[in-house]
Amino acid sequence: MNTTQQNLFVHTGLHNWELSLKRATAFFDKYSDEELLQPIVPGKNRVVYLLGHLAAVHDRMLPLLGLGDRLYPHLDEIFVTNPDNPATTLPAITELRNAWNTVNNRLTEQFRNWTPEEWLQKHTAVSDEDFAKEPHRNRLSLVLNRSGHVQYHLGQLVWFNKKG
Amino acid sequence: MNTTQQNLFVHTGLHNWELSLKRATAFFDKYSDEELLQPIVPGKNRVVYLLGHLAAVHDRMLPLLGLGDRLYPHLDEIFVTNPDNPATTLPAITELRNAWNTVNNRLTEQFRNWTPEEWLQKHTAVSDEDFAKEPHRNRLSLVLNRSGHVQYHLGQLVWFNKKG
Repeated sequence: MNTTQQNLFVHTGLHNWELSLKRATAFFDKYSDEELLQPIVPGKNRVVYLLGHLAAVHDRMLPLLGLGDRLYPHLDEIFVTNPDNPATTLPAITELRNAWNTVNNRLTEQFRNWTPEEWLQKHTAVSDEDFAKEPHRNRLSLVLNRSGHVQYHLGQLVWFNKKG
Repeated sequence: MNTTQQNLFVHTGLHNWELSLKRATAFFDKYSDEELLQPIVPGKNRVVYLLGHLAAVHDRMLPLLGLGDRLYPHLDEIFVTNPDNPATTLPAITELRNAWNTVNNRLTEQFRNWTPEEWLQKHTAVSDEDFAKEPHRNRLSLVLNRSGHVQYHLGQLVWFNKKG
């Protein structure tokens, strides 16, 4: 296996991540701030909750991947720790849209600079002992997992404003 | 990069695929045939439609990945080509559960035998010309994409029989 092939594994994983972000961003960009305050389907989360939730979860990836401190830790209280609650005062939706784009750009720029070896390093939520036994708990695994998490919520989001 | 590292990329991608299958299978196994005939949420697909849909889409992976002929091509008409229609006569739900497990086992067994080089081969829906320009359109990419597709529908399925 040559360098080109090594890089192809990395490129394929990165492409998967970028495609998920692109789809989710296209979804959020399509709707006005007012529309984001509607529930996806009656009785379920509001669209804005998933925007804030995804931004917070991706922000948590920065320390998990050893890429520095979080940018938006205050989002956790509303969008991760607690379920959606229309009585809660939300940050401005512009701020949430901005957080989503900023954190994704920061992550993706760093991912593009990683060597294949750096992709296979452990993420910080795994102990050295566990990583020795389970070396697939690496950064690539975390990125693929979060890409799948975006898809999971996209499956819900597409039910907004649609029949069938 | 040594052989262990090469195999780690493969192992990480495979793990992502297997985890998605495990979660979806656990979901379908939790509900009776009768429950599968309910809509996920009012006005949306029935659970059984997604079982058949995922089985059909995974069955289509066999020829796409050069792993032989399809096992269940008759599922396409009901579960891919057409939207869910309660007036359509469905195959027995036992047959659908069986198709889902059989095709996933067949795929996963083959994936486990692929070398890193085999993971990077093109899938059959890409032309030689396109693949030369876009070598990330390989088998790994297709498998990660389908894993994301499972996640996408899982996000919908978890809304079945749940509050919030």
